[in-house]
Amino acid sequence: MAIEERPVPRPGPAQVVVRVRSVGVCGSDAHYYEHGRIGRFVVEAPLVLGHEGSGEVVELGPDVTRLTVGQRVAIEPGVPDLTCEQCLAGRYNLCPDMRFFATPPIDGALAEYVVVHEAFAHPVPEVISDDAAALLEPLSVGLWACRKARVSAGDRVLVTGAGPIGLVSVQAALAFGATEVAVSDVNPARLALAKELGATEVLDARESRLSDLPRPPQVLLECSGYAPVIAEAIRALDRAGRAVLVGMGSDEVALPLSVVQEHELELMGTFRYANTWPVAIALVASGRIDLDRLVTGTYRLDQTEEALVAGRRDPQSVKAVIRPQT
Amino acid sequence: MAIEERPVPRPGPAQVVVRVRSVGVCGSDAHYYEHGRIGRFVVEAPLVLGHEGSGEVVELGPDVTRLTVGQRVAIEPGVPDLTCEQCLAGRYNLCPDMRFFATPPIDGALAEYVVVHEAFAHPVPEVISDDAAALLEPLSVGLWACRKARVSAGDRVLVTGAGPIGLVSVQAALAFGATEVAVSDVNPARLALAKELGATEVLDARESRLSDLPRPPQVLLECSGYAPVIAEAIRALDRAGRAVLVGMGSDEVALPLSVVQEHELELMGTFRYANTWPVAIALVASGRIDLDRLVTGTYRLDQTEEALVAGRRDPQSVKAVIRPQT
Amino acid sequence: MAIEERPVPRPGPAQVVVRVRSVGVCGSDAHYYEHGRIGRFVVEAPLVLGHEGSGEVVELGPDVTRLTVGQRVAIEPGVPDLTCEQCLAGRYNLCPDMRFFATPPIDGALAEYVVVHEAFAHPVPEVISDDAAALLEPLSVGLWACRKARVSAGDRVLVTGAGPIGLVSVQAALAFGATEVAVSDVNPARLALAKELGATEVLDARESRLSDLPRPPQVLLECSGYAPVIAEAIRALDRAGRAVLVGMGSDEVALPLSVVQEHELELMGTFRYANTWPVAIALVASGRIDLDRLVTGTYRLDQTEEALVAGRRDPQSVKAVIRPQT
Amino acid sequence: MAIEERPVPRPGPAQVVVRVRSVGVCGSDAHYYEHGRIGRFVVEAPLVLGHEGSGEVVELGPDVTRLTVGQRVAIEPGVPDLTCEQCLAGRYNLCPDMRFFATPPIDGALAEYVVVHEAFAHPVPEVISDDAAALLEPLSVGLWACRKARVSAGDRVLVTGAGPIGLVSVQAALAFGATEVAVSDVNPARLALAKELGATEVLDARESRLSDLPRPPQVLLECSGYAPVIAEAIRALDRAGRAVLVGMGSDEVALPLSVVQEHELELMGTFRYANTWPVAIALVASGRIDLDRLVTGTYRLDQTEEALVAGRRDPQSVKAVIRPQT
Repeated sequence: MAIEERPVPRPGPAQVVVRVRSVGVCGSDAHYYEHGRIGRFVVEAPLVLGHEGSGEVVELGPDVTRLTVGQRVAIEPGVPDLTCEQCLAGRYNLCPDMRFFATPPIDGALAEYVVVHEAFAHPVPEVISDDAAALLEPLSVGLWACRKARVSAGDRVLVTGAGPIGLVSVQAALAFGATEVAVSDVNPARLALAKELGATEVLDARESRLSDLPRPPQVLLECSGYAPVIAEAIRALDRAGRAVLVGMGSDEVALPLSVVQEHELELMGTFRYANTWPVAIALVASGRIDLDRLVTGTYRLDQTEEALVAGRRDPQSVKAVIRPQT
Repeated sequence: MAIEERPVPRPGPAQVVVRVRSVGVCGSDAHYYEHGRIGRFVVEAPLVLGHEGSGEVVELGPDVTRLTVGQRVAIEPGVPDLTCEQCLAGRYNLCPDMRFFATPPIDGALAEYVVVHEAFAHPVPEVISDDAAALLEPLSVGLWACRKARVSAGDRVLVTGAGPIGLVSVQAALAFGATEVAVSDVNPARLALAKELGATEVLDARESRLSDLPRPPQVLLECSGYAPVIAEAIRALDRAGRAVLVGMGSDEVALPLSVVQEHELELMGTFRYANTWPVAIALVASGRIDLDRLVTGTYRLDQTEEALVAGRRDPQSVKAVIRPQT
Repeated sequence: MAIEERPVPRPGPAQVVVRVRSVGVCGSDAHYYEHGRIGRFVVEAPLVLGHEGSGEVVELGPDVTRLTVGQRVAIEPGVPDLTCEQCLAGRYNLCPDMRFFATPPIDGALAEYVVVHEAFAHPVPEVISDDAAALLEPLSVGLWACRKARVSAGDRVLVTGAGPIGLVSVQAALAFGATEVAVSDVNPARLALAKELGATEVLDARESRLSDLPRPPQVLLECSGYAPVIAEAIRALDRAGRAVLVGMGSDEVALPLSVVQEHELELMGTFRYANTWPVAIALVASGRIDLDRLVTGTYRLDQTEEALVAGRRDPQSVKAVIRPQT
Repeated sequence: MAIEERPVPRPGPAQVVVRVRSVGVCGSDAHYYEHGRIGRFVVEAPLVLGHEGSGEVVELGPDVTRLTVGQRVAIEPGVPDLTCEQCLAGRYNLCPDMRFFATPPIDGALAEYVVVHEAFAHPVPEVISDDAAALLEPLSVGLWACRKARVSAGDRVLVTGAGPIGLVSVQAALAFGATEVAVSDVNPARLALAKELGATEVLDARESRLSDLPRPPQVLLECSGYAPVIAEAIRALDRAGRAVLVGMGSDEVALPLSVVQEHELELMGTFRYANTWPVAIALVASGRIDLDRLVTGTYRLDQTEEALVAGRRDPQSVKAVIRPQT
């Protein structure tokens, strides 16, 4: 872990330079820091972490038409090749040639300046803070999960796991119109926060069973990645239920196939997100989703190490944010 | 127009008798009263009006398993044959053999007692008033429109026409997660009410053009039935926009076909609703939708005539409700 | 196993009596015969087997309007309650109160006469044989799988398992427009038949790996129920692939969750079918699907035991059919 | 109309030079030739016509990775900006900055050499002829219509208009699994060809009414653009029917709104296509669709004028093809 002086990067065609104002710390950053790899992605050279970022446009590259200097933007951290089969079909998150921030060997946003393609630097209105603008990235994960699950008005949703992704998923489900949103976790502080953010029911997983819910949920947003929870939650779903598997855990997980069949459940994997920033911005700007409430600690660039371990050390911690300009 | 003494009806298998507490007056009731027909439906014998009703279960027919005496219920006013191709496919609103309240020759709910199939008498919790329970019927029209239009979180929606159906559609769109909901009408009182109910923009159609909206809407919920408005609103839609045609007007309407093609718009007709009551109940019970606010007048059964003409006489009137037990 | 003399059953309202002409033997019949149970369904009293049936209408109950005496019909073997939440939504296969032929305690079609609701006795044209009419039932399983998987023109489909359900699924996928349909099994006779029925590639699972396919399939129709095959097949899918789990096996199966996530796969359980007979009839009548080719043995009612064990004893056997009138 | 000597164009990054082998003549080419405009697109400078093209790659620009010199390719004639909201959502046909062949001011394919982005030059196997490769473009229109209409196995489809687009739509509908495909036109030669290509019913519009069909179609692929036909065809649709408006006609068309509402019809505009070439290639290569059969005349480059007027002059003519290398 080191702070390096590097030259301010230069923008290529259709790119802008963003002075970074806020960077959220994600579990994957901490994981790379502590373990040096996530699955098949291995850190082999110095890697700039950070993929939840916001800032201000300070320079325009050639052919930039949508942005101006001074504009505040939220950074969508992956740039796909745009022309493969997946991209042309609107599933650019599945692009095999995706270049994604802070995923080896691509550097991340934990820097004073980063270069971003203008189509992936989304202008944000004044009403959205720098930190909230950075946290549109994890929110996008929750929105994408709701979109995959086709959450709609009046749905009953179960969110398993109340970490940052679970908490944005709760808010996302409410924003999609769900009227019952139950959350389970083992951390009482996080359950209390879930309640504050609108969850209609919280279940302490050490005491309650998911099958205790008064009515079976129609949608599962699985944010724990913990195999026994996944299986239990799938069993708790209503007929024709939809389960989105967001939390990452083991490579193989034993799933209750006979229940999946008898109840015609749909299980869907998610990988990042596509086309979520405009919606995320609209939801936060309209006040339907509160991202600032998730920030439990702010750090300077030279406190990065502290920020990276906050989540593991403090059960009250939800989301650490680094402000590189402070 | 007459009040008749009839025997309390007897419930058949799987039916219940409901003592009616509240009946909303709909434009179609007024239309049958004034004109004696709506399109191909002609009143040829005395017809009990009213298809927006709620009440209390007072008697159970044989084989009733889901309801008990004393339960408060909202009445879904159409019973399909359940076994035709449309019903088995989940589109029971398109059942050719639908028996629908207050549509000749089927009597309606404007009575002290009515008989209802238990599957179409939906229990409502205490938090929903009798009037609101009755108005779940027009709300269902708005919910169905949003479902057909696939309204989702962050959508920009335009509602043309701010009568009762337009006003529930505004609320429905917000409940489905729309963050921009513009409404147009010529009646300032109704526009003010739309604003109060959450519309983010109101357009006085006598002064503004729909193309004046800052960003083109992605969804149109057309509730005016007025041909020039329909055409103008379709032209105002964003590319890939979806238009749901709720308002009934002329048989033939001139539509801007080249715009529909160049922007790949979808135009969808709606006919009543299917499977909306459970969602309607969840939305009203959770406080996301306010139906009581629409009630601008309450009447006794012997004031029915007055209730039927209220909408036409008073520009401030939105929804008249008759309470047969008062 | 016994043949009983019972009175010809009498039709209730909206029911007809069908003189049974052909009954296909399904693996589940054989399973009940040999083991006396399938999962939570236990045979506790004498049970008439058979749920793949066709015949001729010989008597009409009261209120029958769609059928006439003499009409040849295919029997859809389950009758749902029609008014529960699942039924009204068009998913009647998920009705908790489904009464399904040959599932304890409901008797099946292996009889000279059965009573059927008129909406579930589907008229078939002359061009469809009695045996083929009976086999519209297993075909429905394949059609339903294709519908769940959204198979469409030009798709690449993998079918794992070439038993009767695998073989109808191959044909169904082709009928839905798939241009590449690969099939894997360990039985060369069945692979040869798959090829004859239109499969574009056959894989002997003892020698080939599913990952050997020249291009990854977009759709998996899993008809083996064998856990290692399920996992291997899921790994072989293309990004955004869809897997329908048709084959029944263990209660719990270990699935490659990280692949499901990274490739955003959809896994869907299926349980029987809904609204498939009209399409099945159209496809067989038009010659797109050949069901007679699956029949490898015909039996009299007094040969039922022999028919039930044919599949297990003879690797060349695909589908045994019992003709109760012979 | 002139033949100009121009230098062979040079490929930019990710582009290739294609030696053109076949160019289909489209009604829009003829229209530009005769009228100098189509709606808001006006020819103000010399314009190379032709947007249905195939050929051979003869030179690679920098960064080309998917193609090699010598490869036969079908040309997808529009290149979108790839990064706008519509493109990123997979609807690149709606890109406001689309650069489309032979649409002023962009030149078309009616030349000996053209430059194409490698992602829009689709390799074709030997089994597809040069002419058929060119005609993948009109086929794409038909496939896109079927995709919008969600044509699936067993559907009943009506195609109004049996010109080249109508004829590929017939074949597309069959390839999507439709089992009844009726076609109407006033030209007996075209109806005969439709029959030969698989239409199950042909209607001479001078004698028959669309309501004469034995069962109402579930899908309408409207390829005539003729207002009275559009209205009549919409009235003929089944409940919950889907109509795709492909044929271009007047700006405004009177549509039967009350039928659209009462039967909950969906009307969808189409504009070109997106992501259709891979499927088109698979369907033609597998023999499910025959494009060569549509070619009724082949011309040299110096016979272009003759080719352009063939469709208008000869009722037997379906598709004229120009082969620039002959």
